[in-house]
This record gives sequence, C-alpha cells and structure tokens, in this order.
Amino acid sequence: MVTVLKPGVTEDQIENLCNWFRTRGLDVHISRGHYQTIIGLIGDTKKVDVELLESLDIIEAVKTISEPFKNANRKFHPDDTVIDVNGVKIGGGNFVFIAGPCSVESEAQIIEVAQKVKAAGAHILRGGAFKPRTSPYDFQGLKDEGINLLLEAKKETGLPIITEIMNANHLPLFDDVDIIQVGARNMQNFDLLKELGRIKKPILLKRGLANNLKEFLMSAEYIMAGGNENIILCERGIRTFETYTRNTLDISAVPMLHELSHLPVVVDPSHSGGMARLVKPLSLSAAAAGADGLMIEVHNDPKNALCDGAQSLTPEQFSDVAERVRKVIEVAKQ
Amino acid sequence: MVTVLKPGVTEDQIENLCNWFRTRGLDVHISRGHYQTIIGLIGDTKKVDVELLESLDIIEAVKTISEPFKNANRKFHPDDTVIDVNGVKIGGGNFVFIAGPCSVESEAQIIEVAQKVKAAGAHILRGGAFKPRTSPYDFQGLKDEGINLLLEAKKETGLPIITEIMNANHLPLFDDVDIIQVGARNMQNFDLLKELGRIKKPILLKRGLANNLKEFLMSAEYIMAGGNENIILCERGIRTFETYTRNTLDISAVPMLHELSHLPVVVDPSHSGGMARLVKPLSLSAAAAGADGLMIEVHNDPKNALCDGAQSLTPEQFSDVAERVRKVIEVAKQ
Amino acid sequence: MVTVLKPGVTEDQIENLCNWFRTRGLDVHISRGHYQTIIGLIGDTKKVDVELLESLDIIEAVKTISEPFKNANRKFHPDDTVIDVNGVKIGGGNFVFIAGPCSVESEAQIIEVAQKVKAAGAHILRGGAFKPRTSPYDFQGLKDEGINLLLEAKKETGLPIITEIMNANHLPLFDDVDIIQVGARNMQNFDLLKELGRIKKPILLKRGLANNLKEFLMSAEYIMAGGNENIILCERGIRTFETYTRNTLDISAVPMLHELSHLPVVVDPSHSGGMARLVKPLSLSAAAAGADGLMIEVHNDPKNALCDGAQSLTPEQFSDVAERVRKVIEVAKQ
Amino acid sequence: MVTVLKPGVTEDQIENLCNWFRTRGLDVHISRGHYQTIIGLIGDTKKVDVELLESLDIIEAVKTISEPFKNANRKFHPDDTVIDVNGVKIGGGNFVFIAGPCSVESEAQIIEVAQKVKAAGAHILRGGAFKPRTSPYDFQGLKDEGINLLLEAKKETGLPIITEIMNANHLPLFDDVDIIQVGARNMQNFDLLKELGRIKKPILLKRGLANNLKEFLMSAEYIMAGGNENIILCERGIRTFETYTRNTLDISAVPMLHELSHLPVVVDPSHSGGMARLVKPLSLSAAAAGADGLMIEVHNDPKNALCDGAQSLTPEQFSDVAERVRKVIEVAKQ
Repeated sequence: MVTVLKPGVTEDQIENLCNWFRTRGLDVHISRGHYQTIIGLIGDTKKVDVELLESLDIIEAVKTISEPFKNANRKFHPDDTVIDVNGVKIGGGNFVFIAGPCSVESEAQIIEVAQKVKAAGAHILRGGAFKPRTSPYDFQGLKDEGINLLLEAKKETGLPIITEIMNANHLPLFDDVDIIQVGARNMQNFDLLKELGRIKKPILLKRGLANNLKEFLMSAEYIMAGGNENIILCERGIRTFETYTRNTLDISAVPMLHELSHLPVVVDPSHSGGMARLVKPLSLSAAAAGADGLMIEVHNDPKNALCDGAQSLTPEQFSDVAERVRKVIEVAKQ
Repeated sequence: MVTVLKPGVTEDQIENLCNWFRTRGLDVHISRGHYQTIIGLIGDTKKVDVELLESLDIIEAVKTISEPFKNANRKFHPDDTVIDVNGVKIGGGNFVFIAGPCSVESEAQIIEVAQKVKAAGAHILRGGAFKPRTSPYDFQGLKDEGINLLLEAKKETGLPIITEIMNANHLPLFDDVDIIQVGARNMQNFDLLKELGRIKKPILLKRGLANNLKEFLMSAEYIMAGGNENIILCERGIRTFETYTRNTLDISAVPMLHELSHLPVVVDPSHSGGMARLVKPLSLSAAAAGADGLMIEVHNDPKNALCDGAQSLTPEQFSDVAERVRKVIEVAKQ
Repeated sequence: MVTVLKPGVTEDQIENLCNWFRTRGLDVHISRGHYQTIIGLIGDTKKVDVELLESLDIIEAVKTISEPFKNANRKFHPDDTVIDVNGVKIGGGNFVFIAGPCSVESEAQIIEVAQKVKAAGAHILRGGAFKPRTSPYDFQGLKDEGINLLLEAKKETGLPIITEIMNANHLPLFDDVDIIQVGARNMQNFDLLKELGRIKKPILLKRGLANNLKEFLMSAEYIMAGGNENIILCERGIRTFETYTRNTLDISAVPMLHELSHLPVVVDPSHSGGMARLVKPLSLSAAAAGADGLMIEVHNDPKNALCDGAQSLTPEQFSDVAERVRKVIEVAKQ
Repeated sequence: MVTVLKPGVTEDQIENLCNWFRTRGLDVHISRGHYQTIIGLIGDTKKVDVELLESLDIIEAVKTISEPFKNANRKFHPDDTVIDVNGVKIGGGNFVFIAGPCSVESEAQIIEVAQKVKAAGAHILRGGAFKPRTSPYDFQGLKDEGINLLLEAKKETGLPIITEIMNANHLPLFDDVDIIQVGARNMQNFDLLKELGRIKKPILLKRGLANNLKEFLMSAEYIMAGGNENIILCERGIRTFETYTRNTLDISAVPMLHELSHLPVVVDPSHSGGMARLVKPLSLSAAAAGADGLMIEVHNDPKNALCDGAQSLTPEQFSDVAERVRKVIEVAKQ
C-alpha cells in the first residue's frame, strides 16, 4: 500500500502517521520528493481501512497494491480448484455442460428436458424453482414444489441438479440439491453469502449486473471466509449501454478470472445475450476463451410455450451447440 | 402495449396471436402497413410477459407503454404521500434532516452525536448497526448491541431512529426502530422486500448502484404490493465512469421520481460524493431540486476517529449545511 | 412508429396531430382505449423528428420501430458485403488478419514487422502514423513521415496498408493508403465521416468507447450516405466499470452486427483487453463468434522497446495465435 | 509515480529499471518488502509512459499520483480564471446566463428570441448553426447562413454570441463569434482542439457523453497547451443506464471541477435532462452547487414549432428560472 501526502504536511504529522502505521505492524518506507512525500507500507495492509485513511486532511491519495481477496486468489493457490459434484468434475480442464429450463413448470416438462439434455451431453440439470423477478406481479416460480420436481428428474436421469436460492431460510429445502446458485441480484447479499459459507455444498455464484471482477471475487471470498471453498464463478453478462442485447457478455472476464483466481469459471450465454440465436456464437466464444463450462437454457418446446422461450434452445439446438463447443475446446487447448 | 410483427407473417399467424391476446382480456387493434403490421393492445397488459412475447418468431419488437408499477405510481395517487414517523412528517412539503454516524461505535459517541445533531436541527437519528461491507474482513457493525445503543440515544433525545436491515430474520430486533433502511446492495433482494411488505413500519429504500428509476420503483412496488405503503425513496448516487467521486449523485432523479411517484424522495449526499467537502454543495443542490429531505453522516470527531470520517461532517459543519439548506428550500419553493 | 397520447387529450387535438402526420405522407391508425389512445404511423417515418414529437404536451411517448440506418441495413441488402483491398477480400466468409505495430517508429522497424507478420499469415499491415492521445504531452506519431514508411513497407512486402486519419485535411497524404481507419474517438466526428463518404477508399470504422450498436451503424450510415459503401466495422472494446482490463470486448456485437448489417465486422483484441496475454483468448473468441477478421498489434521487440508493448505480440506469438484462429474458424463454420 | 514490481524480480532487473528511470531525470526510492518491492519516482514523471511501463514483464502495477493536466490545474493556478467576453465576465463569482434556441431558424426567430432573453437577463446569446446529428438524414443546421443571422441578432441586441464549431476549416466563419463551442462528441477530436489552441477566442468545451473529469480536463489541456487559456468547461449530462432522462446531470462535477481546476464551469440543464420541465430544478441545483453559469435553450414558440421544443423554455419560463436562480445564488453564497 502506498500513501501519498499532501504538499505542506509537517514533519510532526508525518511522524505521527508513521507511528500509527507501525503500531499496526507495518513496515514504513518514506520517499521525500520536491513536490510530494510518499509512504510505502509493507506487511498485512488488510488492517488499514483505505477509505478512512483517504479521509485524513494530510493525505492526498492511497494506492492499494495487493488484491483484497485471499482465499480466492491464485497467488496463494496456484493450482486450479476442481469441484466434484457427484462425480462430475468442474475446473482444471474438465468442461461441464449445465442445461435445463429457465423455470421448472411440471413433472413431465422437467423430466423430458432432463432426459433430452442428458442425451445431448449435459452433465448437470438446471431449473429455476425460486425465481427472482423485477416485478412482484411476475411468476415467482413453483418454489419447494419446483425443487421436488427437480429431485424427481435427478432420480430419473442420475443428473446432479442446480437451482437458485433467494433466502437462507430455505436452505433445508436444498439438502438434496447438488449445487446451489446465487443469482446476480444477490451477489452482494452478504448475509446470504455468509450462510452459504457455513455449508460445504458447491455454490455457483453469478456476477452482479454492474459489478466488476474485484467485487465478484470479494463475494466469493465472503463464502470462502466462512469455510466453504467450493465456489464456481459464473459470468452472465453485464449491464452496458447496448440495447440490442439484454446484457453484454464480458468475454475477457474468463481469462482474467483464471489469472486472478483458481476457481472454475462458467459462462451463461442464455442470459448474457437474452436471445436463443445468440447462444451458439456466445457458447463457442466462451469455450474459445477458456471457460470451464456453460450453463444453457433448454426447453422442450420453447416456441409454443408462451411461458418460456426468448433465450431457450430446443434440445436439438443444444445438442448441436454442445457438439461444436467440444470441437472448439479441442482446438483451443492444443 | 404495442407489438410489431416481422415482415412476412401470415394472416393465420396474426389471427392466432390476436386470439391469444383476446383470451387475456385485451382489446386488439391491428394496423397493417406496407412494411409492417402493428398490433396495439389496450387493457391490463400486466398479464402479458414482454420477454416471452419477444421470443416468438413472428414478433419483431414489443413496446410497453404504461409503467409496470401501480401502487407507487403518481397517476393513480396524485397526492404526495406524507409519512408520519412519531410526529415527524416526511413528504408533501415537509423537509426532514436525518443525521448521525456511519456506524454506531459506543454509547458515549451515539448519544453525543444525537444531542448535537438534534441541536442543529436534525429530525431523525441515523446510525449503522448492521453494516454491509464489500470485504468479509472489514468491520461488520455492532449488530444488536448497536441497535440497543441507538435506542438509548432515542430515549435520551426523543429523536426517532433509522438503521439498516440486512436479513429479515433480524426483524424482531427492529421492533422499536422507527424507520428501517434497505441498503443499495439489497434493493433487489426480493425476499427481504417481501418480508418488509408484511409490516407497517416506514421503509427507507436506497437506490441500487446501477439501477434505473423504473427498477427502483419496482422494488418499492414489491414492498407496497405486500401492503406496506410507507416507503421513502433514497437517491444515494449511482455508479458511473467517474473516479474522482465515489458515486455520481443523480440529481435529476429527484424531480423525475416526484413526477413518476407520490412517494417522498430523500437524498444522501454523504455516500453520493464520498467526501465531506462535497456534502454542502450536494445538499444545497438536492434541496434546490425539490428533495423531501437529506440523510447526512455526522460524527463527533471525524478527523481523529480513524474509524470514520472520509464523508462525515462535524456537528458544527452539519449545523451550517442545515441552515443554508433551509434558506435554499425557502427560495426554491417561492 | 407509434405515438402514445396522454390521457385527457381532446378529439380536436388528435385530429390536428393526425392531419399533421398525413401532410407528411404517413398512414395514420388510431387505437382508442379506456386509458390511452395510440396512433400507429406507417410510411416513411424518417420525415418525423422523434425528439420534437416527444416535446409536445399531448404526447406521452413515441416508439420507433424501424432502424434509422438504411444503407447499412441487412434488411435491404441481405447479402454480405465483400470488400476487395488490392485482391485481399474482407467479409462474406473471407477471414482477414491485419497486423502491425501500434506506431510506426522507423523504416527498419516497420519493414521487419511487415515481413514477419506477412510470413505469419497477415494479409494487411497496420501501423499508426497520426496517433490520437488523451494527453497533448504524449507522442503524437510520426505523421506524414510515418505514412511514407508504411508505403515503403508496402512496396517491400506487397501488403496493403491501413492507418488512421484524424483530420480530413490530411486526405491527400492517404492517396496510396489502402484502408483508412477512423478511431473510436472520432466515430461521431460527423464532418470527418462526411468527407470520407466522398471518396471510394475502404474505411475501417472503430466503435466509440461508450457508443451502442445503433450509433455505430448510424456513423457507418454517414459515410455510406455520401456514396462510399466500403465500410469495415471494427469492435475494439467498450468502456465498462471493469478496471482489470482496459476495455471490455463486446463479443455479442459480432453476431448482432452481422444480423443488423451486411458490412464486414473485424475485432481488435489488442485494444479491447489492453494486454498482450489477453490477445490469444480474445482472438479465438472473436473467430468463434463469427468475426470476419482480426486487427492485432505486433511489434518486433515489444519487451525491450519501452516505447511500445503492453498490448503487442511478438511476431512469433502472432504466428501462434493466427494458426489457432484458423483452426477455430474451420470448426466454428462447420 | 509508484511502480510495484512482481515477486521474484532479480536485483539486476531492479538495477536496470532504476537506471532507466534515472536517465529520465527521476529520483528513485526503493522500498523492499517481504512480498513486494516498490519503486517510488519523484520528479517530472510526464516523461514516462504509464501504459508502456505496465507492459514490462517485471512490473505488477504502476500508480500515478499527480494529475496529468498542468495548465488547467488549480494547484499551479490557485485563483479562478475570469474570462471577459466583450465585457461579460465568466468565472470568479460572476454568474452568466447563456440563452437562445437550439437551432437558428430565421432572422425573425433569432432576433425575437435574442431580444426576449436579453430582457429576461441573459448575458450571451446561443444558437446552433452547424448541428451535430446522430443521423445523416436529420437537419444539419443553416451553417454559414445561421452564423450570419446570429451576427444580425448580436448587432440588434448587443449580446455576445456563442455557436458550435464542427470543423477547423470553418474557423474563418467564426471571426465575429464571441465564444466558440466544442460539442460533446468532439471533446476528443484532438486535431480540432489543437487548432483552437492557436487562436485566442474563448472556447466553451462540452464534456463528452461517457468521459470522466480527468479526460475532460485533458481536452481543455490540449487547447491550453497551444496557448489559448480562455476555456469555459460545460457539464451537459453524461450517459448512464437511466432512460427516463436523456442524460444524467453530474452535479458533483461542478464542485469537483472547481477543486481540480481554475477554469469556469457552466451547466447546460437543457441537454442534461432533455425535457423543458427539468430545466428549472436542474438550473436551481446547478446554481446551488456553485456553477459559474447556465446555458439554457429558449425558443419563442417551442410548443407549436414542431422543429424545436422538447427541451426548450419559452422566454417567460426562462425569465422565471433566471429570477429564482439569482435568489439561490445569493443564498448559497452567504
């Protein structure tokens, strides 16, 4: 950490500040210049609150250097984390397809989709039971009934299941769910993150709509700080000024997250673009950029089902995308 | 709502679609043009899911016209909502000062600040007990102990108190709190909003960092749909590309929210700018733009207290700001 | 175009408005509802200024339907535009590699880079002569001397050349340049665009830092409206809240631009990420998403050359990227 | 400037780097820590290209400390710049009203508006002759004829005039124009800025749609570096995710620009909100925040004139706004 002092700070003030740093166990290095004095701090600078430092009258700027996330940081864990979900491996070169409908609608629907995506190569079944909706008047999901139907589909097909949690009080309902998803709007619901740190189940954490990668990793850190290190990061598109697409897939996030962290990175091309016809190009891109998996919305009848569709593929389309993705992975890896 | 069809759609397809609209109780008006056919829908279009409509192959675009928020909408409630907090009125021409420290630190601190801000004209005392922090390693607040200290200060000064909730399970702790604050990061924590709709206590809802006014009002709508109409909207700065200021105060939000909604609108100049020296100009601006109140961070000793400060005023500075704000309100009202 | 009237508008006002539309040659379709009256307009709505309509007291909203760009629109030109640059084809399934240094520095440098990128499979040589810099104190390029050196390299290698223009007065210097580049900061320098519409030379138009695709295509339209239809669109990353990467490559822009327009779309992975180590993953992504080409910064000695580098590849790295890109193209096409 | 080295950098590499800094005349201060080595640089760091430094393999991060703008920087020019425009003073406590129509339409129109805004207290007449439009098919202004009509209105009323330039080749037409405006889309048209640095006429520079304050001041610096120090900064709203308002007025920019720079700061409430009814609250806000002036669109007949209006006030409305603004200024100053 580097602290830049304002012009005109007295020697006494510098001495006081440096002593204060030293009481926090930091090594202090002073560089005096014509125009500015700079104090370099070496040690565990987590003990210093940057915003508070910046508030002092004598300080012009504080520059932090090391990343504030520790458990999620690749520097301290150089090897890729590989998460094992009932035998399905995610990360470390294992590519995973997560597929299924936006919402669980009925037993027939979820079982049919599960069977078809399994046949097309999906490793994990997704399906929304609790649905976060911008409007209180929109369909909020089948809730616990939805989870039961997912468990039926799991029993039928053997596919592990993933579904979203919106409230830590619902955790008992997730006992047999294999991966718990935290949605974009809850990425900074810190109390929920803390609760998820207390369990051992894998968590798929979606990036918030307008959050940067540091905040994303800090939210992973919240869960990891509690003791749960089974985190899968999911890039699902960010908010930009573009209006033709629902969100903007931040494809650079894939290699950047791999550089910053050892956690697996999955891409959701369905929400990123918000259109079925963008799923193929965005899936191939994600694979080419080194993603560890894809989470794709698949519905058995997206065209006629008025209650689904804009961004869902048919099982046949999913099968085609998955096949091409496998080829791109092979080529990109070489 | 207006639905624009793609070129080449057949008469049968149009007929099917129109029938589907009619079964939802909507009046259908078809405009056939050389290039495009447009279907106008009149009635309660909340029954139609826009995203799903857009997914249909035959549809080029769907344009919604009426606002999706109903309870919060000024169209249906032309008069300003006035919220009564233990005799302190907010909205409808009643200007309110909410002041106090970022975090409750000790009994001595909160009582001293409470007395001083009261003397300077504050109507309500603020103070953080549960603190949302980006990092799990940062101070998370005194929690229930903090609420107890706020209640002490309330007893001592008679000031109603406001403090932030992060978890609906904590609601019993808020029994004697006068206004419950929902922070920016929880603006779309829909399960929390629903719980707050079940009580009658006033809620101060902060706008999310990158949320637009429609989403902000939809979150108010979540609470109101549950039966709690005592909502205070709080503009606290949005995320932009600017880095000199922590956030960017969206001053236009004040008159726009007043136009769109009957709910009172309060501005938080402390978080908007992130710097004590911006609090005065931003407070005067907010008053000039027609805000119904200000929520300002005040600390008894911001300079020396290393655990607070960057954006806090001293009680004396607050007193000066409050006095000028009162003058601006008078002039702007005339 | 659809015009929504405010509640309470009188029949006389509606009649006046409709007549005004009719004098502009538009067909008018009125849908009267309980709450709102909607006027659908069919015909050449370019004659109506949307912003001005919206200003009228009786109008609540105006919704445009057709895209404002005509020459660039795929609807009216379903086939891909293929641009021929001295025998090098861009668009319509022809993938192009444009490579070279950020700035032209010397004859030796540009000729060495040109020879090496040619050997590695580049089709066109890039090099900056006029450099747009945020600071007036930064290096502004070799200017006309830089163009002369590029022409030397062209003579030596036979590679067509592309370089950026910043001022229409410099056009005579670009007589033997094969493609003229318009930089992101000049995307809405409308006077420059108009001048480029008067010539026939291919123009590579970069997307502005915070411009959406509609604005991007409208800028292409400016050039095309003048008669020059040889436009290559270049996605080079947009501004977002992310700070780890310099810009954010909008990978969805590639398929969206292909859907909206017939013009070729090239991606610049060097500026998008701002880091040499992101060039490979972003290049593969762009190829997987269907880009028609890549523009990559290559320097003969990026590590030691202190005056270049952050985002430049060595010729060897470029050669490796190009080879993998060719494989991805093959796989993605199938 | 502070340079942070990667872990594992050798002493030789450090020595080489430090020598390279020293040859650029910089003082070098090395802080060696357990985890990281930091090099502090004191002196004229403008000679070092930050992006290029960051590209080196041995460097983890570069942190700049001093602002890159020098002529515009208040640090080196503590007193407010006051610009004298034919006797009208801008800056240093002198508040200026600039008013007039968006576009010059006819002699009768511009003279009527000029007379009315003068009577209402305007000091300077604005009017667009060259109009930057997103679409090539929209009205592009009366051009030189528009400037002639403005000069007529100047002769008639004695008001100095301001109008926008889009092309340095048009400079001879601006000989008798009193202030030259550079529009938001040309804020980084560096060649235009350089040309304007060669003249002595006051320049009103508008902030770009998605540019931060540093970039804004660097563009002012471009003009000042050429020798023209008569710059008026104009905040006119930035692009955000909000859609109810056309742009988002960044009110904090007013006090921040005053802190960073000695140049006068004017606000354009008409473009910021894009709606006539927002002009009053935004004008009062700007005055309360300490702006040095307002630039307001006023039209003699905005309602009926279909070719203007959305954001224009009538002369009567302008008169009312101006009167209230004067009162706010008085109160805010005290």
